[in-house]
Amino acid sequence: MKKILNSPQSALEECLTGMALAHGDRLTYHEHGRFIARRNRKSAGKVALISGGGSGHEPMHAGYVGTGMLDAACAGQIFTSPTPDQMMAAAEAVDCGGGVIFIIKNYAGDVMNFDMAAEMHSGKTAKIITDDDVALIGAASHNAQGNRGVAGTVIVEKLTGAAAERGMDLQTCVDIGTRVNASTGSMAVALSSCIVPAVGSPTFTLGDDEIEIGVGIHGEAGRERTSMKTSDELADIFLESILAKVNPAKDHPLLLMCNGLGGTPPSELYVFYNSARKILEKRGLKVARSLVGNYCTALEMAGASLTVTRMSELDLYLWDDPVCTPALRWGA
Amino acid sequence: MKKILNSPQSALEECLTGMALAHGDRLTYHEHGRFIARRNRKSAGKVALISGGGSGHEPMHAGYVGTGMLDAACAGQIFTSPTPDQMMAAAEAVDCGGGVIFIIKNYAGDVMNFDMAAEMHSGKTAKIITDDDVALIGAASHNAQGNRGVAGTVIVEKLTGAAAERGMDLQTCVDIGTRVNASTGSMAVALSSCIVPAVGSPTFTLGDDEIEIGVGIHGEAGRERTSMKTSDELADIFLESILAKVNPAKDHPLLLMCNGLGGTPPSELYVFYNSARKILEKRGLKVARSLVGNYCTALEMAGASLTVTRMSELDLYLWDDPVCTPALRWGA
Repeated sequence: MKKILNSPQSALEECLTGMALAHGDRLTYHEHGRFIARRNRKSAGKVALISGGGSGHEPMHAGYVGTGMLDAACAGQIFTSPTPDQMMAAAEAVDCGGGVIFIIKNYAGDVMNFDMAAEMHSGKTAKIITDDDVALIGAASHNAQGNRGVAGTVIVEKLTGAAAERGMDLQTCVDIGTRVNASTGSMAVALSSCIVPAVGSPTFTLGDDEIEIGVGIHGEAGRERTSMKTSDELADIFLESILAKVNPAKDHPLLLMCNGLGGTPPSELYVFYNSARKILEKRGLKVARSLVGNYCTALEMAGASLTVTRMSELDLYLWDDPVCTPALRWGA
Repeated sequence: MKKILNSPQSALEECLTGMALAHGDRLTYHEHGRFIARRNRKSAGKVALISGGGSGHEPMHAGYVGTGMLDAACAGQIFTSPTPDQMMAAAEAVDCGGGVIFIIKNYAGDVMNFDMAAEMHSGKTAKIITDDDVALIGAASHNAQGNRGVAGTVIVEKLTGAAAERGMDLQTCVDIGTRVNASTGSMAVALSSCIVPAVGSPTFTLGDDEIEIGVGIHGEAGRERTSMKTSDELADIFLESILAKVNPAKDHPLLLMCNGLGGTPPSELYVFYNSARKILEKRGLKVARSLVGNYCTALEMAGASLTVTRMSELDLYLWDDPVCTPALRWGA
C-alpha cells in the first residue's frame, strides 16, 4: 500500500487538522468531539444542520460545512460510523435554539448512532435519511435495510442548508430535505477497488476488463459484474434505473450530477456527463443545473456515479442561493 | 485499460462539449478552434488572458476560464501541445483591444506554438512563461529547456487574471504574472503512473514500495526513485527545495497549495497539507492563503505536489478578488 500518510492510525486526526488549517477563516475543528463546525456566528433561532458518517468520502461531509450548507460534520474512521457522543457534542455546539436536523445516509450504524444522539440532545431534533441509490431496487440482493445514501446526499445537504440559511423553521427544512431525497436517484460504477489504509489491501478485486455496476460507496456489491462498457452504454443503463425513480415530466427542470469516486480524472467525468446529457435531451428532458467533479468519493476508487434530481421552482432558488464551503462555493 | 470513454479518439471533443454544457451559463466551446472561452461580454480594452497546453491536467486550463481568470483555454490532445492555429483563433475571439497575454507552461512545443500564434495575431501580444518546478534545479538531468511549468501556473493565472479584470494594462499584467512565477516553487511525487488513453498502457512503472520524487506532470522522470516515505518526510524534502527558490523572509505571507495529481484522495492531500504547514510554522513562516485539491493533474496518477508562493500585499488582494470559473470560484 502506497499512500501519503504518516500512519493509518493518525491519518483522520491529521486530515481534519489540515482541513481546519486550510480553511481556518471559516471552519474550526473540535478535537474532543471530532467534528468540523462553522466558525462564523450562529444567528439565534437558525435551524442547525449536522451530517456525518464514515470518512473516506471526502469532500463529503466536512467539505460541505459552511454558510448555506452544514453547520457541523462528524467524522468516523474510514468507512465506520461516528459515535453518538460525537454527534451529540456537535449538536450541543451548533444548536442555537432553532433545533437540529441530522442528515443521515441510510446505513444501519449511522442511523442507529444518530438516533441515540437525538435522544441524548437537550434541544429539538429531527432527521432526514438519504437513500438515493437506485442500483438495487428490485434486485434479489436488496436487503431489508433499504437503499443506500450516496452522492444525492450532497444535493439534499445543499438545498436543506439553503432553506435553513433563509430562516425556514425545522419542519419546513425537514420537509424540503425529505422531498428532495425522494426526488433524487443515483447509481455508480466501479472500475477498481480502493484500499482502506488500516486494512492495507483492496476491498475487492476486479479483472482487467471487469467493472462493478451499481457499486456502493464503501465498495459494496452492486447489481452485476460485467465487462467494460462505453460511456454512452453506462449512462444508458444508469439513467434507465434513475429515471424510473425520479420520473420527471418532460418540462420539469432537472439537476444532473456526474460524480467521481476518487480515482477517475475530470476528463472522463465530463465525457460521462456529456453521455448522460445527450440521453436526457433525446428523451426531451431538460437539465437546468449541473455538477461535475469529485463530491462523494470512495477513497481512490476509479469509477463514477450519475445523480438526477427533479427540481421544484423553490429548489432552483435554493440551489442558486450563496454557499461558502470548502467544496461547494458560489455567490459568497 | 479501463476508462469511462466512448473511444480515445473522440474523448477530447466529448470532454470539451460536456464541459461547455455543464457550465453553459459561463463557458462556450469553439469547436472549430478547439478552445473554451468566457461567455460573458468583454469590456473594451480589457487585457485578454489565454492559456492552454496538452490535455490531461484538468481542471487546468479550461476549468480556469471565467470572470477574474482566463478568457480562453486551448486544449491539445492528451499531453500534446495545441496548435498555433488554435491559439490564434482564441486570440482573435477574445482580444478586445487591450492586447492578449499567453500564459505558457515551459515546454518546448507549447512555447514554440504560442510564439507562432503571437506572430500571426493581428493585435498586441505578450507572454508569461511558468517554470515553477524546482525538482531538477541543480540536478544532472536538468536540461537546457529549464524548469517545467506545473501547479504554480494556477497561481499565476489567478493573480494575473485578477489584475486584468481590475483593468490593469498589458505590461502591468505581464509584470505581475512574471513576478508571481519567480516567487513560486513547486515539487511533486508520483506513487503510480497514469495511462494515456491513446497509448493504453502505463507511461512508466513503479514497484510496490517505489515512488518517483520530483516527477513531472506528464510522468517525466524526477530527481530520484526511492522507497515510500511518510507524509512528513515528503513535505520536508519538497519544502527544502521549494524554499531555496522562494526564499521568504520570516514575516512574509505565503500561499501554500497542496495539489493532487488525480488518483490521490482528498484525505491524503489534507494530511500532506498538514505536514507542510507544520514544517513552515516550525521555521517561523506564515501561511496566509491555502489551496488543497486537484488543480493540476496528470490524468489518474496517484501522487501530489506542494507549491509555495511568496505573496506581495497586492497579490493578497488579487487572490481575494472574485473569481468565477468551474474549478476556482469565490466572491461571485
